[in-house]
Amino acid sequence: MAFPEDYKSRVKKINDFLMESLSVVEQGKLRAAMAHYPQAGGKRLRPLLATMVCEAVGGRADRAIPFGVAIEIVHNFTLVHDDVMDEDDTRRGIKTVHAQFGVPEAILAGDALFARAFELIPESDVDGATGLELVDILAKSVRLLAEGQQMDMDFERAKNVTSDDYMKMIEHKTAVLYSAAAEGGVKIAGGSDRQAEAMFDFGRLMGLGFQIWDDILDLRSTQETFGKPVLNDIRNGKKTLIVINALEDLKGVERREFLKVLGKKKATLAELKMARDLLEDVGAIDHADLVSKQLVAKAKERLSVLKNSPQKQALKQFADYMVTRKT
Amino acid sequence: MAFPEDYKSRVKKINDFLMESLSVVEQGKLRAAMAHYPQAGGKRLRPLLATMVCEAVGGRADRAIPFGVAIEIVHNFTLVHDDVMDEDDTRRGIKTVHAQFGVPEAILAGDALFARAFELIPESDVDGATGLELVDILAKSVRLLAEGQQMDMDFERAKNVTSDDYMKMIEHKTAVLYSAAAEGGVKIAGGSDRQAEAMFDFGRLMGLGFQIWDDILDLRSTQETFGKPVLNDIRNGKKTLIVINALEDLKGVERREFLKVLGKKKATLAELKMARDLLEDVGAIDHADLVSKQLVAKAKERLSVLKNSPQKQALKQFADYMVTRKT
Repeated sequence: MAFPEDYKSRVKKINDFLMESLSVVEQGKLRAAMAHYPQAGGKRLRPLLATMVCEAVGGRADRAIPFGVAIEIVHNFTLVHDDVMDEDDTRRGIKTVHAQFGVPEAILAGDALFARAFELIPESDVDGATGLELVDILAKSVRLLAEGQQMDMDFERAKNVTSDDYMKMIEHKTAVLYSAAAEGGVKIAGGSDRQAEAMFDFGRLMGLGFQIWDDILDLRSTQETFGKPVLNDIRNGKKTLIVINALEDLKGVERREFLKVLGKKKATLAELKMARDLLEDVGAIDHADLVSKQLVAKAKERLSVLKNSPQKQALKQFADYMVTRKT
Repeated sequence: MAFPEDYKSRVKKINDFLMESLSVVEQGKLRAAMAHYPQAGGKRLRPLLATMVCEAVGGRADRAIPFGVAIEIVHNFTLVHDDVMDEDDTRRGIKTVHAQFGVPEAILAGDALFARAFELIPESDVDGATGLELVDILAKSVRLLAEGQQMDMDFERAKNVTSDDYMKMIEHKTAVLYSAAAEGGVKIAGGSDRQAEAMFDFGRLMGLGFQIWDDILDLRSTQETFGKPVLNDIRNGKKTLIVINALEDLKGVERREFLKVLGKKKATLAELKMARDLLEDVGAIDHADLVSKQLVAKAKERLSVLKNSPQKQALKQFADYMVTRKT
């Protein structure tokens, strides 16, 4: 088994279910705004994770598709609203929803996506008690996503952001949907509480690794490979783990040069590369790489609650992929 | 029993549960933005309706409080986002959330309110299957609210809006939360499908009456009595039932005069009053009054699925209140 190549037919099923879920919306403009990101593609890692965990615990993969798609829809809803909040005009080469349809439409499309996600849970093939557990998992995740986005916005103005602050922020902003997908997969398969807890943690740890790896790609990749502009986090002044660690070590003129570029919206490419090189030289990117790999190693340890199977092996590959992927 | 005077202690319970529900949010700024409207007060008609229907079907009123508060939170979330979309700076005498906290905070606070609403349902004292039915009712309502808001935004640019269009729009934008509250109340009490259907309709019909009555108050009330600025719908060019009907009858110079003021953001008070008088003279406000009363009369007919009780009487008073209230 190779991840993600071996899951093409499953991704197709997920995509079909996703697009069909959005087709029930009556108002044409609203429907178009809601479908703008989903139809632009995506790896569907979160729904894939839900189905793979469900399988590894002994359930049929397809049973986790509605819940997995609900998570994917929530993910898309947060992208739509985050782009409005961050005033970004493009996302992965296409116009953002608000740039294409206007801010009111984007707010509304996000809300309607959110609502559709919750409509899918009662459609799942699960008993009432399990369904309510899934609602609880998803609703709590969205609330924590909002808390994470608030932290992220606060960080922009904060003088002092520690690596603990950063880890808490990405736990809320990125990891929650992976932990929700994995935990939900266990619930749908009728797994034990011990399995649910372990797989929640598996999702959480690899979600953290995923985000740190994303920060690394922004610095070390190219636009062609990464599929989106690079060196953006420096330009936007993001206090990533890499920047936080570098600021602990950079001194004197190098520190001043770095701080001059961090958050400079009109920085030149040369300035951004200079700042990137400083992060590289001080070892902050290598350190982040190590942290991301350690997180995924810890994630894989949590798989010990599952019996050995090809599905368990596939989950290991999934976890490795999170911190080795090129896009 | 007098409505709503006899429900003061219940409204207090609802308020306590509502404010406590918001207190779990960790990020201070987010929590403050979320609580901005809820703590400014409100009649809590939707949660009251849920508890009263639950009682009238034989359940304990308190059991419907979590679901009722979930609906109230959804209502508040739509107010927050609608105010951003409409660029309104004040609501009932206080600053809107985005005017006070900024647009990104308002978008986020709305999202977090939405999430909290769904977190409350698994906390309700109901079995899993009933809980999932409540999730379905609430999620569908929010999606329809978004469809209604889309219609409302489209109406602003539309040349031709019919009274059928208007009724469909307010059914989505206003009535759904009343029908959801009433239907949910039956489900929580363990009532029959026939009762659930009838009470859904009871809520829907009186919700429609409520909105038409609101349009009338905007024209016939004063700011002191109504608690918010009047003649706003004319200034904002809202195509209410009253305006739609008037435009079928107004001819010649009167029609031209009216259309000159409709949607004129900088209209003087004298102009607004002239336009209002034209609506009055052509009989459009009286007609809307009649429609609102007929809707509530039809709503009350649906109460025939309940056995006679003081609670059933109270629901009749609730329905009458919707189209006789001063605020």
